[in-house]
Amino acid sequence: MRHSPYPARVETWAAVDSLRVVREYADRPITEPELHRILNAARRAGSSRNKQRWDLLVVRDRARLRALTEVAPYGTHMAQAAAVIAIVTPDPRLPDASLAITWDSGRAAQNMVLTAWELGIGSCPITVYEPDRLREILGYPPTHHAPFMLALGYPADPKVLEQPKRPGGRKELDEILHQETW
Amino acid sequence: MRHSPYPARVETWAAVDSLRVVREYADRPITEPELHRILNAARRAGSSRNKQRWDLLVVRDRARLRALTEVAPYGTHMAQAAAVIAIVTPDPRLPDASLAITWDSGRAAQNMVLTAWELGIGSCPITVYEPDRLREILGYPPTHHAPFMLALGYPADPKVLEQPKRPGGRKELDEILHQETW
Repeated sequence: MRHSPYPARVETWAAVDSLRVVREYADRPITEPELHRILNAARRAGSSRNKQRWDLLVVRDRARLRALTEVAPYGTHMAQAAAVIAIVTPDPRLPDASLAITWDSGRAAQNMVLTAWELGIGSCPITVYEPDRLREILGYPPTHHAPFMLALGYPADPKVLEQPKRPGGRKELDEILHQETW
Repeated sequence: MRHSPYPARVETWAAVDSLRVVREYADRPITEPELHRILNAARRAGSSRNKQRWDLLVVRDRARLRALTEVAPYGTHMAQAAAVIAIVTPDPRLPDASLAITWDSGRAAQNMVLTAWELGIGSCPITVYEPDRLREILGYPPTHHAPFMLALGYPADPKVLEQPKRPGGRKELDEILHQETW
Protein backbone atom coordinates (compact mmCIF):
# COMPACT_ATOMS: atom_id res chain seq x y z
CA MET A 1 0.00 0.00 0.00
CA ARG A 2 1.24 3.45 -0.86
CA HIS A 3 1.40 6.15 1.78
CA SER A 4 2.90 9.28 0.21
CA PRO A 5 0.41 11.48 -1.61
CA TYR A 6 2.62 11.50 -4.75
CA PRO A 7 4.43 8.21 -4.86
CA ALA A 8 4.57 7.41 -8.53
CA ARG A 9 7.30 8.82 -10.71
CA VAL A 10 7.04 8.22 -14.40
CA GLU A 11 9.26 9.88 -16.94
CA THR A 12 7.48 12.04 -19.44
CA TRP A 13 8.05 10.01 -22.56
CA ALA A 14 7.18 6.81 -20.70
CA ALA A 15 3.87 8.38 -19.67
CA VAL A 16 3.13 9.56 -23.22
CA ASP A 17 4.05 6.21 -24.70
CA SER A 18 2.33 3.96 -22.17
CA LEU A 19 -0.85 5.97 -21.70
CA ARG A 20 -4.08 4.25 -22.53
CA VAL A 21 -7.74 4.99 -22.01
CA VAL A 22 -9.23 3.45 -18.87
CA ARG A 23 -12.98 2.90 -18.70
CA GLU A 24 -13.23 0.44 -15.81
CA TYR A 25 -12.50 1.87 -12.41
CA ALA A 26 -11.75 0.50 -8.97
CA ASP A 27 -14.02 1.53 -6.13
CA ARG A 28 -11.31 3.74 -4.70
CA PRO A 29 -11.36 7.50 -4.34
CA ILE A 30 -8.76 9.85 -5.72
CA THR A 31 -7.19 11.65 -2.77
CA GLU A 32 -7.35 15.42 -2.41
CA PRO A 33 -3.63 15.89 -3.09
CA GLU A 34 -3.90 13.74 -6.22
CA LEU A 35 -6.94 15.62 -7.48
CA HIS A 36 -5.24 18.91 -6.69
CA ARG A 37 -2.23 17.96 -8.75
CA ILE A 38 -4.37 16.86 -11.68
CA LEU A 39 -6.34 20.12 -11.63
CA ASN A 40 -3.15 22.13 -11.36
CA ALA A 41 -1.84 20.34 -14.42
CA ALA A 42 -4.68 21.93 -16.40
CA ARG A 43 -4.16 25.27 -14.71
CA ARG A 44 -0.46 25.24 -15.65
CA ALA A 45 -1.15 24.62 -19.33
CA GLY A 46 -0.16 27.21 -21.86
CA SER A 47 -2.84 28.96 -23.85
CA SER A 48 -3.10 31.39 -26.70
CA ARG A 49 -1.99 34.81 -25.42
CA ASN A 50 -2.22 33.25 -21.94
CA LYS A 51 -5.99 33.71 -21.99
CA GLN A 52 -6.68 30.57 -19.91
CA ARG A 53 -10.19 30.35 -21.27
CA TRP A 54 -11.20 27.45 -19.10
CA ASP A 55 -13.00 26.65 -15.88
CA LEU A 56 -12.81 23.23 -14.29
CA LEU A 57 -15.88 21.69 -12.74
CA VAL A 58 -15.26 18.58 -10.65
CA VAL A 59 -18.01 16.07 -9.96
CA ARG A 60 -17.53 13.33 -7.36
CA ASP A 61 -21.05 12.92 -6.01
CA ARG A 62 -22.19 9.46 -7.09
CA ALA A 63 -25.73 10.49 -8.02
CA ARG A 64 -24.43 13.34 -10.14
CA LEU A 65 -21.86 11.06 -11.79
CA ARG A 66 -24.72 8.75 -12.72
CA ALA A 67 -26.70 11.68 -14.11
CA LEU A 68 -23.74 12.61 -16.31
CA THR A 69 -24.13 9.37 -18.23
CA GLU A 70 -27.26 10.89 -19.78
CA VAL A 71 -25.18 13.35 -21.80
CA ALA A 72 -22.84 10.95 -23.57
CA PRO A 73 -23.74 7.63 -25.20
CA TYR A 74 -20.12 6.49 -24.87
CA GLY A 75 -19.79 7.70 -21.30
CA THR A 76 -21.65 5.13 -19.21
CA HIS A 77 -18.45 4.45 -17.29
CA MET A 78 -18.75 7.91 -15.71
CA ALA A 79 -21.18 6.30 -13.25
CA GLN A 80 -18.25 4.31 -11.77
CA ALA A 81 -15.58 7.00 -12.06
CA ALA A 82 -13.98 8.49 -8.96
CA ALA A 83 -14.37 11.93 -10.51
CA VAL A 84 -15.38 13.62 -13.71
CA ILE A 85 -13.83 16.94 -14.67
CA ALA A 86 -15.81 19.10 -17.08
CA ILE A 87 -13.67 21.60 -18.98
CA VAL A 88 -15.92 24.64 -19.32
CA THR A 89 -15.06 27.26 -21.94
CA PRO A 90 -16.64 30.19 -23.75
CA ASP A 91 -18.80 29.00 -26.65
CA PRO A 92 -16.37 27.52 -29.19
CA ARG A 93 -19.03 27.36 -31.91
CA LEU A 94 -19.75 31.07 -32.22
CA PRO A 95 -18.83 32.19 -35.75
CA ASP A 96 -16.03 34.41 -34.50
CA ALA A 97 -14.83 32.07 -31.75
CA SER A 98 -11.13 31.33 -31.83
CA LEU A 99 -10.15 27.73 -32.52
CA ALA A 100 -7.65 28.24 -29.73
CA ILE A 101 -10.44 27.92 -27.16
CA THR A 102 -10.78 24.27 -28.09
CA TRP A 103 -7.12 23.67 -28.90
CA ASP A 104 -5.95 25.09 -25.59
CA SER A 105 -8.51 23.07 -23.66
CA GLY A 106 -7.22 19.94 -25.38
CA ARG A 107 -3.72 20.85 -24.24
CA ALA A 108 -4.96 21.35 -20.68
CA ALA A 109 -6.79 18.01 -20.82
CA GLN A 110 -3.66 16.20 -21.96
CA ASN A 111 -1.72 17.72 -19.07
CA MET A 112 -4.34 16.27 -16.72
CA VAL A 113 -4.42 12.87 -18.38
CA LEU A 114 -0.63 12.47 -18.24
CA THR A 115 -0.37 13.79 -14.71
CA ALA A 116 -3.08 11.36 -13.59
CA TRP A 117 -1.33 8.50 -15.37
CA GLU A 118 1.89 9.17 -13.49
CA LEU A 119 -0.14 8.77 -10.28
CA GLY A 120 -1.53 5.44 -11.49
CA ILE A 121 -4.91 7.01 -12.20
CA GLY A 122 -6.64 6.20 -15.46
CA SER A 123 -8.82 8.51 -17.50
CA CYS A 124 -11.14 8.59 -20.44
CA PRO A 125 -12.12 11.68 -22.46
CA ILE A 126 -15.84 12.08 -22.91
CA THR A 127 -17.46 13.85 -25.85
CA VAL A 128 -20.70 15.54 -24.78
CA TYR A 129 -23.69 14.81 -27.03
CA GLU A 130 -26.41 16.46 -24.93
CA PRO A 131 -25.12 19.90 -24.03
CA ASP A 132 -28.46 21.24 -22.80
CA ARG A 133 -28.85 18.38 -20.35
CA LEU A 134 -25.27 18.83 -19.21
CA ARG A 135 -25.91 22.49 -18.50
CA GLU A 136 -28.98 21.50 -16.43
CA ILE A 137 -26.88 19.09 -14.39
CA LEU A 138 -23.85 21.31 -13.87
CA GLY A 139 -25.47 24.73 -13.89
CA TYR A 140 -22.97 26.78 -15.91
CA PRO A 141 -24.33 29.83 -17.70
CA PRO A 142 -25.55 29.95 -21.32
CA THR A 143 -22.39 31.82 -22.32
CA HIS A 144 -20.37 28.73 -21.46
CA HIS A 145 -20.05 25.25 -22.91
CA ALA A 146 -18.41 22.00 -21.94
CA PRO A 147 -17.97 19.91 -25.06
CA PHE A 148 -15.47 17.58 -23.39
CA MET A 149 -15.03 16.01 -19.98
CA LEU A 150 -12.54 13.63 -18.41
CA ALA A 151 -13.57 10.62 -16.37
CA LEU A 152 -10.92 9.64 -13.82
CA GLY A 153 -10.34 6.70 -11.55
CA TYR A 154 -7.93 4.06 -10.41
CA PRO A 155 -8.10 1.22 -12.92
CA ALA A 156 -10.18 -1.79 -11.91
CA ASP A 157 -7.31 -3.83 -13.29
CA PRO A 158 -3.98 -2.21 -12.36
CA LYS A 159 -2.25 -4.31 -15.02
CA VAL A 160 -3.57 -1.82 -17.58
CA LEU A 161 -0.91 0.58 -16.33
CA GLU A 162 1.83 -1.62 -17.77
CA GLN A 163 0.05 -3.34 -20.59
CA PRO A 164 1.78 -3.60 -23.96
CA LYS A 165 0.39 -1.48 -26.77
CA ARG A 166 -2.29 -2.95 -28.97
CA PRO A 167 -0.79 -3.62 -32.43
CA GLY A 168 -2.33 -1.39 -35.06
CA GLY A 169 -3.76 0.96 -32.45
CA ARG A 170 -2.22 3.95 -34.22
CA LYS A 171 -1.32 4.80 -37.79
CA GLU A 172 2.38 4.41 -38.51
CA LEU A 173 4.45 7.56 -38.48
CA ASP A 174 5.16 7.37 -42.20
CA GLU A 175 1.42 7.47 -42.89
CA ILE A 176 1.05 10.88 -41.28
CA LEU A 177 4.47 12.49 -41.70
CA HIS A 178 5.45 15.00 -44.39
CA GLN A 179 8.90 16.53 -44.75
CA GLU A 180 9.15 20.19 -45.79
CA THR A 181 6.02 20.12 -47.98
CA TRP A 182 2.95 17.98 -48.44
CA MET B 1 28.21 17.17 -23.90
CA ARG B 2 25.52 14.53 -24.10
CA HIS B 3 26.02 11.41 -26.17
CA SER B 4 22.95 9.24 -25.77
CA PRO B 5 20.10 10.11 -28.10
CA TYR B 6 17.65 10.24 -25.16
CA PRO B 7 19.57 11.36 -22.12
CA ALA B 8 17.12 13.52 -20.26
CA ARG B 9 14.65 11.97 -17.87
CA VAL B 10 12.05 14.23 -16.38
CA GLU B 11 9.11 13.01 -14.39
CA THR B 12 5.75 13.80 -15.86
CA TRP B 13 4.49 16.24 -13.28
CA ALA B 14 7.86 17.98 -13.22
CA ALA B 15 7.61 18.46 -16.98
CA VAL B 16 4.03 19.76 -16.77
CA ASP B 17 4.89 22.10 -13.92
CA SER B 18 8.20 23.43 -15.22
CA LEU B 19 7.25 23.80 -18.89
CA ARG B 20 7.46 27.24 -20.36
CA VAL B 21 7.32 28.71 -23.83
CA VAL B 22 10.70 29.15 -25.50
CA ARG B 23 11.03 31.68 -28.31
CA GLU B 24 14.81 32.10 -28.49
CA TYR B 25 16.69 29.16 -29.85
CA ALA B 26 20.30 28.05 -29.94
CA ASP B 27 21.88 27.40 -33.32
CA ARG B 28 21.81 23.68 -32.71
CA PRO B 29 19.84 21.07 -34.62
CA ILE B 30 17.40 18.62 -33.11
CA THR B 31 18.77 15.14 -33.80
CA GLU B 32 16.81 12.61 -35.81
CA PRO B 33 16.10 10.38 -32.78
CA GLU B 34 14.87 13.39 -30.82
CA LEU B 35 12.63 14.57 -33.64
CA HIS B 36 11.36 11.04 -34.10
CA ARG B 37 10.39 10.79 -30.47
CA ILE B 38 8.62 14.16 -30.54
CA LEU B 39 6.64 13.18 -33.64
CA ASN B 40 5.78 9.83 -32.13
CA ALA B 41 4.44 11.63 -29.08
CA ALA B 42 1.81 13.20 -31.33
CA ARG B 43 1.18 9.92 -33.10
CA ARG B 44 0.59 8.16 -29.77
CA ALA B 45 -2.03 10.67 -28.62
CA GLY B 46 -5.56 9.53 -28.06
CA SER B 47 -8.30 10.91 -30.26
CA SER B 48 -12.05 10.80 -30.48
CA ARG B 49 -13.02 7.31 -31.67
CA ASN B 50 -9.31 6.86 -32.46
CA LYS B 51 -9.77 8.83 -35.67
CA GLN B 52 -6.27 10.33 -35.57
CA ARG B 53 -7.33 13.23 -37.76
CA TRP B 54 -3.89 14.73 -38.07
CA ASP B 55 -0.93 14.85 -40.37
CA LEU B 56 2.40 16.24 -39.25
CA LEU B 57 4.45 18.39 -41.58
CA VAL B 58 8.01 19.06 -40.44
CA VAL B 59 9.96 22.04 -41.74
CA ARG B 60 13.69 22.34 -41.10
CA ASP B 61 14.88 24.11 -44.24
CA ARG B 62 16.06 27.56 -43.14
CA ALA B 63 14.57 29.42 -46.11
CA ARG B 64 11.21 27.76 -45.55
CA LEU B 65 11.35 28.47 -41.80
CA ARG B 66 11.87 32.13 -42.71
CA ALA B 67 8.94 32.02 -45.10
CA LEU B 68 6.73 30.66 -42.31
CA THR B 69 7.13 33.91 -40.40
CA GLU B 70 4.84 35.50 -43.02
CA VAL B 71 1.83 33.56 -41.71
CA ALA B 72 1.95 34.54 -38.04
CA PRO B 73 2.59 38.01 -36.62
CA TYR B 74 3.67 36.46 -33.31
CA GLY B 75 5.83 33.81 -34.98
CA THR B 76 8.95 35.65 -36.09
CA HIS B 77 11.03 33.29 -33.95
CA MET B 78 10.21 30.48 -36.39
CA ALA B 79 13.04 31.85 -38.53
CA GLN B 80 15.53 30.72 -35.84
CA ALA B 81 13.80 27.48 -34.83
CA ALA B 82 15.45 24.13 -35.42
CA ALA B 83 12.12 22.82 -36.72
CA VAL B 84 8.51 23.81 -37.09
CA ILE B 85 5.82 21.15 -37.02
CA ALA B 86 2.53 22.02 -38.66
CA ILE B 87 -0.41 19.98 -37.39
CA VAL B 88 -2.58 19.48 -40.45
CA THR B 89 -6.21 18.46 -39.98
CA PRO B 90 -9.46 18.32 -41.90
CA ASP B 91 -11.17 21.72 -41.98
CA PRO B 92 -12.23 22.41 -38.39
CA ARG B 93 -14.41 25.36 -39.41
CA LEU B 94 -16.91 23.50 -41.57
CA PRO B 95 -20.37 23.84 -40.00
CA ASP B 96 -20.59 20.12 -39.25
CA ALA B 97 -16.95 19.68 -38.26
CA SER B 98 -16.42 18.00 -34.92
CA LEU B 99 -14.77 20.10 -32.22
CA ALA B 100 -12.76 16.96 -31.52
CA ILE B 101 -10.61 17.67 -34.60
CA THR B 102 -9.18 20.69 -32.82
CA TRP B 103 -9.34 19.27 -29.30
CA ASP B 104 -7.49 16.12 -30.29
CA SER B 105 -4.83 18.07 -32.15
CA GLY B 106 -4.31 20.15 -29.01
CA ARG B 107 -3.81 16.93 -27.06
CA ALA B 108 -1.29 15.71 -29.65
CA ALA B 109 0.51 19.05 -29.52
CA GLN B 110 0.80 18.90 -25.76
CA ASN B 111 2.29 15.41 -26.00
CA MET B 112 4.94 16.84 -28.33
CA VAL B 113 5.64 19.89 -26.18
CA LEU B 114 6.14 17.82 -23.02
CA THR B 115 8.20 15.17 -24.77
CA ALA B 116 10.43 17.86 -26.25
CA TRP B 117 10.78 19.52 -22.86
CA GLU B 118 12.01 16.29 -21.31
CA LEU B 119 14.74 16.28 -23.97
CA GLY B 120 15.71 19.83 -23.07
CA ILE B 121 14.08 21.17 -26.24
CA GLY B 122 11.88 24.24 -26.01
CA SER B 123 8.79 24.96 -28.03
CA CYS B 124 6.29 27.64 -28.81
CA PRO B 125 2.81 27.15 -30.23
CA ILE B 126 2.06 29.33 -33.24
CA THR B 127 -1.41 30.49 -34.22
CA VAL B 128 -1.69 30.83 -37.99
CA TYR B 129 -3.18 34.13 -39.18
CA GLU B 130 -2.57 33.71 -42.93
CA PRO B 131 -3.87 30.27 -43.83
CA ASP B 132 -3.81 30.81 -47.59
CA ARG B 133 -0.16 31.80 -47.53
CA LEU B 134 0.62 28.83 -45.30
CA ARG B 135 -1.03 26.51 -47.78
CA GLU B 136 1.11 28.01 -50.56
CA ILE B 137 4.27 27.42 -48.56
CA LEU B 138 3.46 23.90 -47.36
CA GLY B 139 1.34 22.63 -50.24
CA TYR B 140 -1.38 20.74 -48.39
CA PRO B 141 -4.71 20.37 -50.20
CA PRO B 142 -7.73 22.69 -49.84
CA THR B 143 -9.52 20.04 -47.79
CA HIS B 144 -6.91 20.46 -45.08
CA HIS B 145 -5.98 23.22 -42.68
CA ALA B 146 -3.19 23.91 -40.23
CA PRO B 147 -4.43 26.47 -37.72
CA PHE B 148 -1.60 25.72 -35.29
CA MET B 149 2.09 24.91 -35.51
CA LEU B 150 4.85 24.28 -33.01
CA ALA B 151 8.26 25.90 -33.24
CA LEU B 152 10.98 23.80 -31.64
CA GLY B 153 14.58 24.31 -30.69
CA TYR B 154 17.16 24.09 -27.97
CA PRO B 155 16.84 27.21 -25.84
CA ALA B 156 19.38 29.96 -26.51
CA ASP B 157 19.61 30.20 -22.74
CA PRO B 158 19.50 26.72 -21.17
CA LYS B 159 18.69 28.28 -17.81
CA VAL B 160 15.10 28.62 -19.03
CA LEU B 161 14.75 24.87 -18.47
CA GLU B 162 15.02 25.35 -14.72
CA GLN B 163 13.73 28.85 -14.27
CA PRO B 164 11.25 29.54 -11.48
CA LYS B 165 7.69 30.28 -12.54
CA ARG B 166 6.72 33.86 -13.16
CA PRO B 167 4.42 34.98 -10.30
CA GLY B 168 0.91 35.64 -11.55
CA GLY B 169 1.53 33.77 -14.79
CA ARG B 170 -1.62 31.74 -14.26
CA LYS B 171 -4.95 32.28 -12.56
CA GLU B 172 -5.15 30.67 -9.13
CA LEU B 173 -6.92 27.34 -8.94
CA ASP B 174 -9.76 28.75 -6.85
CA GLU B 175 -10.51 31.25 -9.63
CA ILE B 176 -11.29 28.50 -12.11
CA LEU B 177 -12.46 25.60 -9.97
CA HIS B 178 -16.07 24.61 -9.31
CA GLN B 179 -17.15 21.71 -7.12
CA GLU B 180 -20.17 19.64 -8.19
CA THR B 181 -21.98 22.57 -9.83
CA TRP B 182 -21.21 26.02 -11.13
